Amino acid sequence: MMARPRAKKPAVDVAIVGSIGIDTVETPTDRREHILGGSASYACAAASFFSRVGMVGVVGTDFPAAYLKLYKRFGIDTEGLQVRPGETFRWSGVYESNMDNRRTISTELNVFASFSPELPEGYRDAPYLFLANISPSLQLHVLDQVRRPRFVMLDTMDLWINTARDELHTVIGRVDLLTLNESEARHLTGRHALMQAARRLLELGPKYVIIKKGEHGSMLFSRRSIFLMPAYLLEDVRDPTGAGDTFAGGFLGALARMGTVSESAIRRAMLYGSVVASFGVEDFSLDRLAKLKRPQIEQRVRLFRRMLAG
Amino acid sequence: MMARPRAKKPAVDVAIVGSIGIDTVETPTDRREHILGGSASYACAAASFFSRVGMVGVVGTDFPAAYLKLYKRFGIDTEGLQVRPGETFRWSGVYESNMDNRRTISTELNVFASFSPELPEGYRDAPYLFLANISPSLQLHVLDQVRRPRFVMLDTMDLWINTARDELHTVIGRVDLLTLNESEARHLTGRHALMQAARRLLELGPKYVIIKKGEHGSMLFSRRSIFLMPAYLLEDVRDPTGAGDTFAGGFLGALARMGTVSESAIRRAMLYGSVVASFGVEDFSLDRLAKLKRPQIEQRVRLFRRMLAG
Repeated sequence: MMARPRAKKPAVDVAIVGSIGIDTVETPTDRREHILGGSASYACAAASFFSRVGMVGVVGTDFPAAYLKLYKRFGIDTEGLQVRPGETFRWSGVYESNMDNRRTISTELNVFASFSPELPEGYRDAPYLFLANISPSLQLHVLDQVRRPRFVMLDTMDLWINTARDELHTVIGRVDLLTLNESEARHLTGRHALMQAARRLLELGPKYVIIKKGEHGSMLFSRRSIFLMPAYLLEDVRDPTGAGDTFAGGFLGALARMGTVSESAIRRAMLYGSVVASFGVEDFSLDRLAKLKRPQIEQRVRLFRRMLAG
Repeated sequence: MMARPRAKKPAVDVAIVGSIGIDTVETPTDRREHILGGSASYACAAASFFSRVGMVGVVGTDFPAAYLKLYKRFGIDTEGLQVRPGETFRWSGVYESNMDNRRTISTELNVFASFSPELPEGYRDAPYLFLANISPSLQLHVLDQVRRPRFVMLDTMDLWINTARDELHTVIGRVDLLTLNESEARHLTGRHALMQAARRLLELGPKYVIIKKGEHGSMLFSRRSIFLMPAYLLEDVRDPTGAGDTFAGGFLGALARMGTVSESAIRRAMLYGSVVASFGVEDFSLDRLAKLKRPQIEQRVRLFRRMLAG
C-alpha cells in the first residue's frame, strides 16, 4: 500500500474544531440577543491575526449570512464549516454580581447534537490543531483524521469530565497541550492545590498544561518548569464570553507564526493570547476583534511586557 | 528654638507599628491554640531577614517569655514594645472550604484597646516606617513622632474603612505607599475595576498603591505605571494567617536593604515580600520563618524569577 502523499504546503496553518453558536448574553448593564458565539468563532477570529486558519464546525440553515461574511473578513477558511438542515446551536446566559458569576439560562444543541467533524483534505496536514470544547469522542475522531500535526492543543469542560471521563483521559494522552480552567483542573484531578492538579494532568501524557484563572491570569506547567502569567489589566469588561477560547486561539495563532514550539515560544504566545483576549472582552461577541488591527495587538503586548518586568 | 539634633545613624532601619496577638487558628486539617500572631509579629519577623527592625506594639503581662525570646532570635529590636497590666490581644479564627474563607470566632482587644504607640528616640530617625493595621488615628500619632522618614508604608482594614474613613483618608495622604487587599480597595473607593480603584487611591496622595490578591498575587500602581506580580506557587498552604503582613514586612525590609526607593527597587522588593510570605504560610505562626535562612530566600527568589520570565 502506498503512503498517502503529503501536500507540499497545507491549506491552513491552524485548524480549529469547536462549537458555533447564536448567543443571548445579559450582563449587569447590558443585554444582546442572537449574537455570534461559540468556541470555534472566538478561537478562529483570534488566531486569524497571526496565521491562516481553517474552521471546522456546524451551523443550521438559519445561520445569518452576515456572520459568514464576518468569518471571511477575518480571513477564516470555512471549507470545514458544515451547513445542516435545522437550527444553529443556541446558548443564553447571564453574568451576575460584577461579572463574577455566569449562569446558563438555556442551551439548545440543534444541529450541534449530531455534529460529526470532518476535516477537508487541505486541513489534514495543518501543523497546528486546536480541539476546542466538544465531546472527547468527537475530538478523538478529529485526531484520527490529521497527519502528523506538529502541535495539538485541547480544551474541555465540566460536562465531559462528568459524562465521558475515560474518553477524555484518552484524548488528553494524545495531545501536546491541555488547557482548562482552574475549577475544571480541580474537578478532573480531585486536587485542590493547582501544582498538584497540574502534575496529575501531566501524568496523563501532554507535554504542557495551561490552567486558566480568568482575570487572575494563567499558569503553564511542564514536567520541569512553571510559568506564571497575570492577565492584562482591563479598565472595564463588557462581556467575558469566549475569553478562554479567544486566549487559546490567539495563543495558537501566534505560536504557529513563530514556527517553533519551544517553551520560550509557548510563553511568548501566551502573552499574545492574553492580549487578544483582553481586547475581545471589551465588547460583545466578535465586535471588538472585528475592528482590531495587528499593530494594536503589538502595542498592547509591549505595554503588557512592561507590566510584568520584575 | 534649636532644631532637635538628628542621630548620625538611626538605631533601626525599619520601624514597624502594629498589633501583637495570641491567636487560635483552625484549618480544615489542623488546629493550634495560643500561638504568636499579630501584624507586627509577622511583619517584623519578615523584615528581619534583610534589615535592622524595631517593633512598636503592646502586650499584656501574660505575654509568654518564649515569644519575647523568639523576637530576639529574629534580631528584632523590642525597645518599642510596651508591656501593660492586663491580657494580650487575642484572636481566634477558622479557615473554611479549602482555606478560601476565613471566619473570625472571637476578638479580645484587652491591652490593645488603650494602646498608644510611642516611638523610642532611636526609632524616630528610622528611614523606613511601616504603619501596619491599627486605627488611623494611632497611625497619625506615629507619623507625628517620626523625623523625615525616607519611605512610609501603610496598611489598613475594613473596620477602619467603616468607622474612620476621614482619618483614614488623611493618613493615606501622608504616606508613600498604601497596601490593602482587593476587597478593601473596592470597599474604600466604591469601584469594582481594580484599575479604577487604584487611580482613586493614588488621588488621595500616595506615590504607590499595592493591591494584594492573596494566592493570585499583587499589583503595584503608580501614576504612570502598573506592575502585575503573580504569587509564588505553593504545593500546600498550612496557615495563611499573616501572609499579607509577612509580604509587607519582607517587602519593606528588602527595600530598606536596597537603599533606593526607585520603582525598579520596589518591584524587586515585592518579589522578596512574596517569597518570604510563601515560606510563612507553610506552617502556623512564625514557625516556618523561625527556621528560615537568608540563602533559602535567595534561592526561591531565583526560582520565582524563572517562573515569571515571558
